[in-house]
Parts: sequence; C-alpha cells; structure tokens
Amino acid sequence: MNKKGLSILMRIRMRPNSAAKLSLSPLTNELNQTQMNSQVNQSASSNTEREFELVRASMNSAISMNKTEVLDAVLNDFSAGYFNLDHENRRRLLLVLAKEYDLNRTQVRELIKQYLGLEPPSVSGENAQSSGLEEEGLLSAFYRTERNLRHALNPVYEVLFERLNTHPGGLKFLSSLRADILSILAEENIASLRALDSYLKEKLSTWLSPAALELHQITWDDPASLLEKIVAYEAVHPISNLLDLKRRLGVGRRCFGYLHPAISGEPLIFIEVALLKNVAQTIQEVLWDDPPILECEATCALFYSISSTQPGLSGINLGKFLIKRVITLVKRDMPHITTFATLSPIPGFMQWLLSKLASQSNLAEAEDMSQSSANGSGSTFWENILEPEEEKAIMDSSAGIAAGKSGMEVMLNLLTSTNYEWTNSAELLLVLKPPLMRLCARFLLQEKKRGKALDSVANFHLQNGAMMERINWMADRSEKGLRQSGGIMVNYVYRLENIEEYAQSYFSKGHIHASADLRRYVKPLEEHEERTD
Amino acid sequence: MNKKGLSILMRIRMRPNSAAKLSLSPLTNELNQTQMNSQVNQSASSNTEREFELVRASMNSAISMNKTEVLDAVLNDFSAGYFNLDHENRRRLLLVLAKEYDLNRTQVRELIKQYLGLEPPSVSGENAQSSGLEEEGLLSAFYRTERNLRHALNPVYEVLFERLNTHPGGLKFLSSLRADILSILAEENIASLRALDSYLKEKLSTWLSPAALELHQITWDDPASLLEKIVAYEAVHPISNLLDLKRRLGVGRRCFGYLHPAISGEPLIFIEVALLKNVAQTIQEVLWDDPPILECEATCALFYSISSTQPGLSGINLGKFLIKRVITLVKRDMPHITTFATLSPIPGFMQWLLSKLASQSNLAEAEDMSQSSANGSGSTFWENILEPEEEKAIMDSSAGIAAGKSGMEVMLNLLTSTNYEWTNSAELLLVLKPPLMRLCARFLLQEKKRGKALDSVANFHLQNGAMMERINWMADRSEKGLRQSGGIMVNYVYRLENIEEYAQSYFSKGHIHASADLRRYVKPLEEHEERTD
Repeated sequence: MNKKGLSILMRIRMRPNSAAKLSLSPLTNELNQTQMNSQVNQSASSNTEREFELVRASMNSAISMNKTEVLDAVLNDFSAGYFNLDHENRRRLLLVLAKEYDLNRTQVRELIKQYLGLEPPSVSGENAQSSGLEEEGLLSAFYRTERNLRHALNPVYEVLFERLNTHPGGLKFLSSLRADILSILAEENIASLRALDSYLKEKLSTWLSPAALELHQITWDDPASLLEKIVAYEAVHPISNLLDLKRRLGVGRRCFGYLHPAISGEPLIFIEVALLKNVAQTIQEVLWDDPPILECEATCALFYSISSTQPGLSGINLGKFLIKRVITLVKRDMPHITTFATLSPIPGFMQWLLSKLASQSNLAEAEDMSQSSANGSGSTFWENILEPEEEKAIMDSSAGIAAGKSGMEVMLNLLTSTNYEWTNSAELLLVLKPPLMRLCARFLLQEKKRGKALDSVANFHLQNGAMMERINWMADRSEKGLRQSGGIMVNYVYRLENIEEYAQSYFSKGHIHASADLRRYVKPLEEHEERTD
Repeated sequence: MNKKGLSILMRIRMRPNSAAKLSLSPLTNELNQTQMNSQVNQSASSNTEREFELVRASMNSAISMNKTEVLDAVLNDFSAGYFNLDHENRRRLLLVLAKEYDLNRTQVRELIKQYLGLEPPSVSGENAQSSGLEEEGLLSAFYRTERNLRHALNPVYEVLFERLNTHPGGLKFLSSLRADILSILAEENIASLRALDSYLKEKLSTWLSPAALELHQITWDDPASLLEKIVAYEAVHPISNLLDLKRRLGVGRRCFGYLHPAISGEPLIFIEVALLKNVAQTIQEVLWDDPPILECEATCALFYSISSTQPGLSGINLGKFLIKRVITLVKRDMPHITTFATLSPIPGFMQWLLSKLASQSNLAEAEDMSQSSANGSGSTFWENILEPEEEKAIMDSSAGIAAGKSGMEVMLNLLTSTNYEWTNSAELLLVLKPPLMRLCARFLLQEKKRGKALDSVANFHLQNGAMMERINWMADRSEKGLRQSGGIMVNYVYRLENIEEYAQSYFSKGHIHASADLRRYVKPLEEHEERTD
C-alpha cells in the first residue's frame, strides 16, 4: 500500500469498543455508525418546504419521463436532493412514493374484467401441434391479457427502482433508501410503506443474485478505500487499530468479501478466517494470540466473523453462498485444511435467559402471595429452570453481590450486576458455569420460533448446513460478549459431505444436528418436546 | 500471452468469410457458428424416449424441490441432460415447460375473487397519520392480497429461471435455452412458447442490468480463452487470422467488452475502436491500412464494429450504455480525441431496394398489359424511384450485362447479377452511383417502421443519440458489404453535447438528425412526408 493509502487509512475514526449500538450478530443489519453519523449531519439543518417540493418534483420526473438518457441528470438530482433531506422530510417523501405511486387500480380492475372473460388454455398439453392457427391466435390474446394484468399489478414506483438500478450509483442509493424505510417501519407500522419495502426487497434480491456477486480475497494490497470499509463495518469483533487490521489480513488469516460491480470498492458482506491447528475455543486466541502458526501446519479454517455492510439489504441472505464458496476456495488452495468451523456469538442467549428468569421470579412471587388461595397447586406456567444442585450452589454462594428469594432471582441479580462483577469472582464463575452452559445448550438446541432456531446466528449457520459442535465457557470476555451470551461462544462445524443433507433436514423438519457432547447438556426427555413458540 | 495460450488460439477454427449465415448487423443475434456447430453435434445422435423422460424428470425436480442446496446437483443434471437432447426433444421439453408449468389459474381466479371483495386504500395520501391501527390492519390485508395475486400471476417456470440464475453457469444456460426457443419460434408460432419467451426475456433483462455489467478493455494480454471468443463472435468484419486479431488490439486500436460476473471470460457484447486523424470513409482503410498513426495525433475515435455474442440475449439492448461508457473512458484517457463516430453497415438497404425495384417493375409490367383498359390513369401505387437523368443513363449503358424494359428493371438485373459483376465495370459504377447514393439516403432518412428508422443499425445508433453524418460510396467491397448495401457504408457521429437531446427527440418524435450534406440527397418535399409503414 502506498503512503497516500496509509495516511487515508490512519484518519479513519475507529469504532468505539463500548458499542452499545453495534450490530448484535453477523447478520442483523442495524444502522451502523457511518450511516448514523451521516443522518445526524443531515438532520442538523432542517429543510424548507421549497427544498422538499423540489425533491418531490425531481422524483416525479424520474418516474414519469420518457426512458431516454435525459434521465441521468434527473436521477442525479433526485438522489442528491434526497440525501439533503432531513429525517422527517425523507419520511414524508417516502410516504408520497408509497401512496401516490402505487398501482393504477382502475386499470387493474379493467384488466381483471377482460381476463375473466377469456377462455384459458386447456391443460392437455401435448396436442399443441394439432391446434389450428385460429386457436393459437386466441391463446396469444389470452397470454397477452395475462401479462398485461401481471404488469399492471406492479406498482408505479417500480419504474423508479428499475431506473435507479441501471443508473451509476443507483443500486447503492436504493440500499440507503431501504435503510431509511426500515428505520421508519421500526418506529411505526404503515401498511403502504411496508408494501413498498416488501416490493423493494424483492427487487433488490433479484438484482443482488449471487450470480452477479464476485468473491474477492481482501488483502493488505487492496486500496485503502476498501480497507477502511472493513474497519468501519466489522460488526462482530471491532477492529481496534491498524495493526489489528493488518494482522487480520496477514499470515494465517484470510478475509473474503462479496463485491457487486455496481457498488464498487465496498464488499456487501465479508468473512474473516483464521488458519489454525485446532478449532479455537475462545475469541482471544484468534484475535490476540501471537504469532500465528505456519500455514502449512493448519488443519482448520475457522470463520470467526461475518459482517454485512448494507443495512438496506437486511433480510437478503447474501451469506449463504459465501460460506460455501469460501470453503471451496480454501480447500482448493490448501488441501491440508480438513475442518471448517466457526467461532460464533450467541446474540440471543442472555436476552432469552434474563426474560425467562425475570418472568419466572415474578410468577414465583405471585404464587407466593396467593399461596393461601383456593387452588392449592402451582401455576402451570411456572418452571424452575435450575436443577436442584444448581439452585443450592447459587443460594450458598451469592452472599456479597446479590440476594434473592430463589436461585433464579439470585441468578438474575448476579447476571445483571454492574460491570459483570460475577465474572471477577472465581467462586461465582464456578457456581454459574454449570447452569449457564446447560441453559445455553437448551437455548441453542431447543428454543425455536416458527420451527427454526430462535438465535439468529444459529439459524443462519444451520440453514447453511452446519452442525453445532461445542459451546465454550468464557470464550468472549468483551463487554459485548458478556452482555449477549454471558461470555459463551459456540463452534459450528461445516462437514462438506453433510452440508446439503443437514441444510435439507433443517429446512424441511427444523432438525438441528448437534454433537453428542452438546446434546448431553440437555435432558433426553426435553430434547423431544421441542418448543416452537 | 504464454505459449499455451497461443497454441490454443491458433487451433481456433476461423469463421469463413463467405458468411451466408453470419449476423447481418451488429445487433441481430442470429445463431452463430459456434452455436450451430454444437447443435449439429447434438442432433447427430437422436435420443431415446428414456433419455427424454430423465431430463423431464430432472426439470420437474428442479422446479418442485425445496429450496436448499440439494438443488445444485439437480440443476447440473438438468442442464447436462438438456444439452444432450436433440433438436426435436428440446422442442418437446420446452413445450412441456411452457404448458405444464405456467400459472395455477384456479388459484389466480380464487385470489381475484378475494381481491375484488376488498376495499382499496383511498388516494387521499397525506392523512395517513390520523388513520387508526385498525385501518392500517385492513390496508395490510389489502396489500397482502394484491401481492399474492401478483405472485400468483407469475408462471411456475419462474422458479426454474430464478434457480438457474443463482446457479453457477445458470445464466449462460438460460441464454442458450432462449436461443433454442427463438429458433423454434422462428419456424412456428406457438402462443405458450411465445409467452415463455417473453417472460424469460423480461427476467434476463433485469438480471443483465447494466449495473451488473463490467466494462473491460480487451487487450493482447487477456487470456486466449477470452480472445478466441472475440474471433468467434465478431459479426461485422470477420477476423481472418491471428495477425488480424493482434492488429485490432494493438497500437491505434481499442476493444472494449461488457463482462457479466456470472458468464466469466466471455464478453456479452464488444466494440472495436480505431484511433484516426479523420473519420474514415471505407472499412478497408480501417482494417488494412498500415501502419496506424501515432495515437497522440489521433483526433477521432471510430467505432467500426459492435458484436453481441449471445443469440439468447436477442432484444435486450446491451449496447446502449456501452457506447456512452466507452466514449467517457476514451475521452478521459485521450482528451485530444474530439470526434466520436462510427463506420457502420446498412444491413437493410439492398433488401429494401431490391424489393422496391421488383415490385415496381411488376407493377409497370401489369400497367403495360392493361394499358388499353377502361381506366386510363396509372396505378396510384406505381412510382418511378429513378430520376429521369438516372433512368436515361442506366438505359444507355446497360448493354452487355443486363437488359430490361425500364431503368428500374435494368437496375434490378444489374444489382442481382452473379458475383456483383457491375462492380467490375468503371462505367456501371459511375452510372449507378448517383441513384444508389440518393436512394440510400432516402432509405436511411425517410423509410420508417412504427415511427423508427427501418434499418436496424440506424435505429440502434439514433436511439443512442447519434446523428447521420455521411454516406460513403464503395466503402465495403466485401461480399457481405455488396450484398447488404451495394458497398455503401454510413458514418454516424456522436456529439457529446447533443447525445441526450438527439436521443430524446428521436425517441419521442422519431426525428432523425442528419448533416446538410446527407439531407441534400433527398428532395426537400419528400423529407416532410416521412413514410411510416
């Protein structure tokens, strides 16, 4: 990298480690720092009504003008104008787009009437040769009306999306537009805007088909403008300084990204890989252990971070083909690598556990107060999620930091104590490890939502055909690691020979493949009554 | 280029110059030689019924299986099986696809019924804030039904197309599939197959959006596997040998292509450019004049060939953005280039002229025979397209090669004489030049179809914003040049400052911008009564 590149790179404002707003998992697409900054800048100065009307007018031109090259200027005007709007005016404009540029419903009803009046083709497919010219003519008319109806059911704003997609920088702009739409929808549910979002998402999915994505190995020789994106977007284990970045691209490490020709110099998603002797148990040994082993001695490629860079592409699974293609690539270059595994966060664990502990403690309290009531039996909703020996150990050792009437209440108080104080006490670590590891295994293996793993990262890897191999105690002691999963991380393993079978059985039956070690944490009985709420 | 590359390149079977089957214009996408060869190979051995049924079964699996990674194998089976089918069985299979995998029309009618029963959203856009939660709920249901109806109107075979598009090599396969469909439709019109084609074309247009295309300068340093494609697909001025190819990539020449990441090592369309002092008048000086001038002395970039490589992408305008982007690129690298022009074929001229001459000669003959009939006035359809002095000159000099009762009949016979004998006679060249140049200008400037230039290449450049600058006598003396346009070629000029205005007025009013020199060929009177049949 030349001097200019370096100097640019060193001016990057690194993301703070205390990342309260950072993405919680490789695939949640929260607004990232860069995005937020730019929004703040824009909303600082609010727009005049005239500014809004100008952008609205350029949007109208972009939709209604003839499709010639004249459009370029109009589309530039529109996107520049849009970026200049503050949050409230963007919201207004997007509502105008969603409501005033959706379907022509009079035309739709007219076409439906026509369509219902026509005779559909018979399904007796094979004897087409015998049908006369006249019949082919009638059929043509039918297919034409059907196509017209299909087209009429496309909202008018499709034109804007299509035109932006063929416009330089337009795809990136559409992705920003959708990020705004998602952030509005997160605050309030507006049916027309949701319809707009769902349509735009469909379009983006087609345009960002894996066929149009290029897999690129990112190295220290890449332009600084690309590398600064890696620093800015790394969502799992933030990159703290230049040395850290260089290490992640150096010996014993790999970084691959998907690039789209229309969004140049910026991967849509990237994955970081460490070449190791064994599947790592803690993120510390991946990020900080020095020096790396000789690459020729590595037998394991460990995926330790996947970050997507475009909040506006949320819900579009770009990662699916990425992992498979990276495995193929690594295997081709380094046949001695036989294990492909991840060291992944469990972003949903603590949230699930704390709400479980809180609601059960409340139930217990309510139970307690109504003990003398008519119905003597306990609430059917109440469940002590602690084993008797865990309960006992917790009650015995809690003194000093947290108190409570039951093991669950004490545990809740311990886990929510300031600065994760429990992690500084060897005794508490010893006491809390068994229930936390067991409950984490239960969370990963048994807690589901619509038949799929409740944890988003688990769902991602399982649908890609991975199996759950191992959970690791105190594997990520960063603030984020402790907050999300009590410091526990999980290894998913991709076995090339099983990827397709596992993906298929997870997809069709929600079956989660896990190692015997992991399954041992959960009671065989419980294993069969999988939760699907 | 290394030795291996060269040896591969030298094994290429060059396309014959006597190219009866070659593309007639840069943008017609006839089946090319390569394609035809592979088809011949396949049809050599006809398939058993069992082979057909196997491919049909794999097609069915590819459409109806769950969307998981298992698909890869199925899609590979299907495409390999398809390529192995002979022409008749491909036709059968495509008909099965078109008829048995189109819409579920029962579902469509069901959804239409539901849809018509719902209240559409009011258009009074602005007061969305005031609408209650309940109303948003009703609206959501409406939008959902509308979306479901839109989805239901997509044929079932959409799934196959979508899956192939995300499959390695699938986009290329879809392009081959469409080439087959087009060749079947050229023989017989089958409504369901035409509907399939129109749907596939729509899909391919989205996937091949210019946003996903990369502009690549093709040089002698490119892999032989790419360069052989240039040799194989060059449709305008066939590349005769290795030296010819090297010259077209060498000093004073440029070659640019659009690459799609999913169709690797093969441009979808490419354009050849010569750097010259002046706008060339004949193709001979571009292809054969040696040595080229110093690049720093060039003031003109001449586009002398545009070829598209995929017959299956016929009708998808890939060239539009190409010319504009190439101009921008050349201008950036070489600011001393101020003129951007083409030297283009006029593929439709002779066809138009000969049919005009033939029909007018017939009319004249019929007129002759019925001279004594009741109605004394001539047929209103009859028109002597020759000027009196042209008629006289032709009648005076025709002796020896062709005879006829009128100038038009003699001209028809001269132009269709074996081996273009008229081009070997200095006298005939002199006599024919005035009417041919004048009628060529009339053809280019005035003959239209649905308000657009009748000539396909003219229509292409005009819609890109070019103007017609000059027609050149004996500019292409190749067999193809004489057959298509009597050896005449035309220069289109792109003036950066006018491109958008010209494209716009051609698009909206069919207005053709032409130089005064060119307009002088046609009578001012005729200029205003533009033909639109």
